[in-house]
Amino acid sequence: MENGAGNGTAAVAAWNFAPNDALLGLTALSVRGTLGRVKAGMVVEDGAFPVIPLGHGDPSAFPCFRTAPEAVDAVAGALRSGEHNSYATSVGLEPARRSIAQYLSRDLPYDLPADDVYLTSGCTQAIEILCSVLARPGANILLPRPGYRFYEARAVFNGMEARYFDLVPERGWEVNLDSLQALADRNTVAMIAEMARKLGVFVIADEVYAHLTFGEKKFVPMGVFGSVAPVLTVGSISKRWAVPGWRLGWIVTNDPNGVFHKTKVVDSIKSYLDISTDPPTFVQGAIPQLIENTKEEFFDKTIEVLRQTADICWEKLKGISCITCPSKPEGSMFVMVKLDLSCLQDITDDMDFCCRLAKEELVVVLPGCAVGYKNWLRITFAVAPPSLEDGLDRLKSFCSRHSMLKK
Amino acid sequence: MENGAGNGTAAVAAWNFAPNDALLGLTALSVRGTLGRVKAGMVVEDGAFPVIPLGHGDPSAFPCFRTAPEAVDAVAGALRSGEHNSYATSVGLEPARRSIAQYLSRDLPYDLPADDVYLTSGCTQAIEILCSVLARPGANILLPRPGYRFYEARAVFNGMEARYFDLVPERGWEVNLDSLQALADRNTVAMIAEMARKLGVFVIADEVYAHLTFGEKKFVPMGVFGSVAPVLTVGSISKRWAVPGWRLGWIVTNDPNGVFHKTKVVDSIKSYLDISTDPPTFVQGAIPQLIENTKEEFFDKTIEVLRQTADICWEKLKGISCITCPSKPEGSMFVMVKLDLSCLQDITDDMDFCCRLAKEELVVVLPGCAVGYKNWLRITFAVAPPSLEDGLDRLKSFCSRHSMLKK
Repeated sequence: MENGAGNGTAAVAAWNFAPNDALLGLTALSVRGTLGRVKAGMVVEDGAFPVIPLGHGDPSAFPCFRTAPEAVDAVAGALRSGEHNSYATSVGLEPARRSIAQYLSRDLPYDLPADDVYLTSGCTQAIEILCSVLARPGANILLPRPGYRFYEARAVFNGMEARYFDLVPERGWEVNLDSLQALADRNTVAMIAEMARKLGVFVIADEVYAHLTFGEKKFVPMGVFGSVAPVLTVGSISKRWAVPGWRLGWIVTNDPNGVFHKTKVVDSIKSYLDISTDPPTFVQGAIPQLIENTKEEFFDKTIEVLRQTADICWEKLKGISCITCPSKPEGSMFVMVKLDLSCLQDITDDMDFCCRLAKEELVVVLPGCAVGYKNWLRITFAVAPPSLEDGLDRLKSFCSRHSMLKK
Repeated sequence: MENGAGNGTAAVAAWNFAPNDALLGLTALSVRGTLGRVKAGMVVEDGAFPVIPLGHGDPSAFPCFRTAPEAVDAVAGALRSGEHNSYATSVGLEPARRSIAQYLSRDLPYDLPADDVYLTSGCTQAIEILCSVLARPGANILLPRPGYRFYEARAVFNGMEARYFDLVPERGWEVNLDSLQALADRNTVAMIAEMARKLGVFVIADEVYAHLTFGEKKFVPMGVFGSVAPVLTVGSISKRWAVPGWRLGWIVTNDPNGVFHKTKVVDSIKSYLDISTDPPTFVQGAIPQLIENTKEEFFDKTIEVLRQTADICWEKLKGISCITCPSKPEGSMFVMVKLDLSCLQDITDDMDFCCRLAKEELVVVLPGCAVGYKNWLRITFAVAPPSLEDGLDRLKSFCSRHSMLKK
């Protein structure tokens, strides 16, 4: 120890490490990295009014979104059994894969085999794995705008190019097929949309918000079209069960024609799973019980609350100047709204808007830049109704306070 | 649906995916990939004698290695509280970081700040993160042979070169410093050994087996020498608490001189954490209780069993022809033994030996090639004594059955 801790001099040959600037920049593409910057200037004093989190898609802290007790019992049971403390297999425990296959097959025109399900540490790792597997020099991936830029972060980290096609706000965020086709070339490996067969590319269907719909249209999984073009579906229990902290997700190959086997996509996924971490074994062990025992009432209640909060959001936003909401949300936990900077005093852009909103009103909203939509805002309504109303009222007073009209 | 599931033709423009052959090859470097190949030919019939797993460092399935009830209670309590269902922060929950910092400080000459601890999804992800962060074109990493080739897999996947220095069996697996120095150059970013200061490289200290010692020498963490050369320590609760399936590990910067801040290693780690998955939030939430409440008796009992099984292993191996064990194990869960192929009939190498041992005796042992040591075997003694004796007896009969002498 003397020759160690005692000796405190640091003078040595220069250390052989050069930080990867590309990596340092990727933080800006992550929702939590962006929200971190938004919250940076926020000062929360004792007795101050509470922070209203309208930035993150994580309602699990609110009692009205508390997960099903059956889900907690399933995990606690698997933990207490002592049978799930060991390493899992790299593809995931067979009973968990089988029950997820059966669960997903309810919405498919064919039965998904258990072997087509690969367990991951949440959707996050599922995306990381797919980007690592699909990457090759010069490859590109087509992504929707607005969208989840984590795909871009992982694509770029793995040396792929991210190309964006537009969703049309006026048409309920429908894909602009022309802009999509214009982007694709022979180096396009994947996209998150249709036309894949025509373009000869795979589809990655991010269905983490599966079944969280409360409008006219019901949820239809992309896997239904698996025989038209092979689909890599990613999902997790995070959103529907409101447990993003449990880290249990999956990659599913919806591919009745076996294209993923012929092209070795499956082998590549398995190889990557061999050299990456796994979801907790006891959570895997709990999945059959968790899926089997969770009552429909739990899902119905969640949807009912989301329908109610989406309504609140829609109505309140109408009354806020300088903000327009193109369409009423019918699914997921978010609404995109457009900022009219021309009627806002001394606000430079969406990031500036969010930083000052957080500082002045303790309301956290995601700037559109984080989803590739400059000068828009992404607001989550997956919040307890009183908090949502409070947050939107503060947003309103912030806007009127900074409105030109007040000049 | 009709235009989907109904339509089963797959003829399309060739799919734009080319598998990454390098990735496909990395499976061979993973312990589980190798054990998968060893077990492939194994046929387990009903009523056949049981499979004896001497390949994996995971004793959690054996009652004598069952984790501490206080640890289970801590995780169950955090789960039931409902307060840890949300996303965690990318660096990990503060109370967990603080308690791990205090836990590790017990063995350090200085107090480790909580901010120097980053939570990961097991040591596996800790290694993945460090290899991703340290990689740059032309970079290389020095690794011990025999050693854990997962480092090579992640280094190669990230475009780094893995260079091996030797450990000397005759000198209790001590580092061969000459071979080490000969390997290093200005592109060397990290190593898992000493001399780092002299070479100007960081040290990665993999201390997942910390405190699992039962010989003369006690465990001394590399962080003790953090002021000589900055140390990135990786560890987890997997081995000491016998819960590898719980997926809770850490990266710690042991760096009293702040070299990792000056060189932006810390910023790079944080950036990568922003774009990667996290350990389960409720396991993070359980860490303070888990560390505080686990009784010394539990650790003492585990060490006592390991000392006993190491003795059994050492004594039984002496009596097996064609196998030599250079030194009695004094820590961890493994012993390396040398195969003398010259006295073994019709066995081509270590992989062939292990495949046939698995097939003929249902005993699973790791071939040395998986740890970079061709024609040696890695045997774990972290197995219940009766199973260990049974497994080593079967190994003995296998060796005598295949011995030249029997010709």
